[in-house]
Amino acid sequence: MTNSGTTQRVSVIGLGAMGAALAQALLRGGHRVTVWNRTPAKAEALVGDGAVLAATAADAMAASDLVILCVLDDAAVREHLEPAAERLRGRTVVNLTTTTPEQARSLGAWAGGNGIDLIDGGIMAVPAMIGGPRAFVLYSGATAAFERYREVLGLFGRAEWAGADFGAAAMYDLAILGGMYSMFAGFQQGGRMVRTTGGTATHLATLMAPFLQAMAGLFGQYALGIDDPASYVPEQSADFTVGALRTIATAADESGTASELFEVLLKTVPGI
Amino acid sequence: MTNSGTTQRVSVIGLGAMGAALAQALLRGGHRVTVWNRTPAKAEALVGDGAVLAATAADAMAASDLVILCVLDDAAVREHLEPAAERLRGRTVVNLTTTTPEQARSLGAWAGGNGIDLIDGGIMAVPAMIGGPRAFVLYSGATAAFERYREVLGLFGRAEWAGADFGAAAMYDLAILGGMYSMFAGFQQGGRMVRTTGGTATHLATLMAPFLQAMAGLFGQYALGIDDPASYVPEQSADFTVGALRTIATAADESGTASELFEVLLKTVPGI
Repeated sequence: MTNSGTTQRVSVIGLGAMGAALAQALLRGGHRVTVWNRTPAKAEALVGDGAVLAATAADAMAASDLVILCVLDDAAVREHLEPAAERLRGRTVVNLTTTTPEQARSLGAWAGGNGIDLIDGGIMAVPAMIGGPRAFVLYSGATAAFERYREVLGLFGRAEWAGADFGAAAMYDLAILGGMYSMFAGFQQGGRMVRTTGGTATHLATLMAPFLQAMAGLFGQYALGIDDPASYVPEQSADFTVGALRTIATAADESGTASELFEVLLKTVPGI
Repeated sequence: MTNSGTTQRVSVIGLGAMGAALAQALLRGGHRVTVWNRTPAKAEALVGDGAVLAATAADAMAASDLVILCVLDDAAVREHLEPAAERLRGRTVVNLTTTTPEQARSLGAWAGGNGIDLIDGGIMAVPAMIGGPRAFVLYSGATAAFERYREVLGLFGRAEWAGADFGAAAMYDLAILGGMYSMFAGFQQGGRMVRTTGGTATHLATLMAPFLQAMAGLFGQYALGIDDPASYVPEQSADFTVGALRTIATAADESGTASELFEVLLKTVPGI
């Protein structure tokens, strides 16, 4: 079974900024889109573009073989799906709500017990990027269902398979966001430091951004130290890295702006 | 006084991989280069390319109006400069040894007291990048001396002025490196997380690198929150950021690979 070039019936539950962007991408792709939102007014623009507004969430879930959820949190997901278990049997549910990996696994177990194909997803984009060249979405869980709907899901952005573990997409998603916030924390700490010697965070931004963009190119090399530590030869000695981090931590202390950030790095980074 | 297009006498003290790369860049630029290293054998290739090997560090310092140091640490800098104070009077010393901002300030005060123009620098490149398009070097301290030698110093990479505070270049240097290690720590933590759901750090690298390269483009915007917090309106609410960081920390806990990294970020990041 393939959906290549064919029109699919797809339902989207939850029309926040992200859910609405997903529904718009499906409409642009020529699919028959049914939508539902707790506040129906949010569906108006989509109805104008050809979507059908269902009277209830249950009706929306009954309208399509492919049901996409993008709601507040895991509790809201459960609230929608559990009463509809019987009518979802045999269908595919793609949950694009942000949850933890354990919540995704628990939902996957529940879906499996009810004959529902669950795909858990993590969207690596802001709503304005959906359907554009830089967006990608991580998916994990029901492998055959993912293959069946891969082309439809590709309308949101590059569809990236993370594995059969229902929690895999959420784990990749949160790992990437954790990397982003770590980088931001380093920039913020640096901005506070340079201000104490007459500099500005704005000047630092012009210097640090291209430097880190180049250094992110080393992730693939450092990944070998995580995937296969036994055979990895670090590029720089742990002593060198510890020495550099101690000097950085000292500079932060001297600046009077030190947080615990560099202390934590001293405990974690030295295997690069 | 300008050195535009003119040949300068420049001495380089310390011929580790970085010092040798600096001396090579000066030779390529057509300058008369005197070098000295504790182990003279390291000077052989440079002498072959036209450098003069001085018999002592003091002789090397006497040979040029511009003296560049690239040695092990602040103690080694002091060991070379202090006995030579008298003969360095009126000359310019550029210290490219990695030190803390306070060490740079202390050296600047010593130099000022001895009639020496001190420029402290921080090299943002590995030796192989010296003289190439992606290298840059931060400088701070004696402003007029920097202007006088700007063109010579530009042979190493883009010359970036950090301010008259002798510690400014070191502070920018260490702030940028702190950002790099923060980013690496986030990647390493993420790599350990995704492996627990059947993923690999190598796969994560292909996803996280372009994502962080794009997100580093936001530094300039977040810099406003550091430079002018009173008038800054955060892009996302602190509640949203804290919620996202708690979910990330929970995922790290669930994976059994948690470090203290995300706990520290929860204390520091939420002003973006």
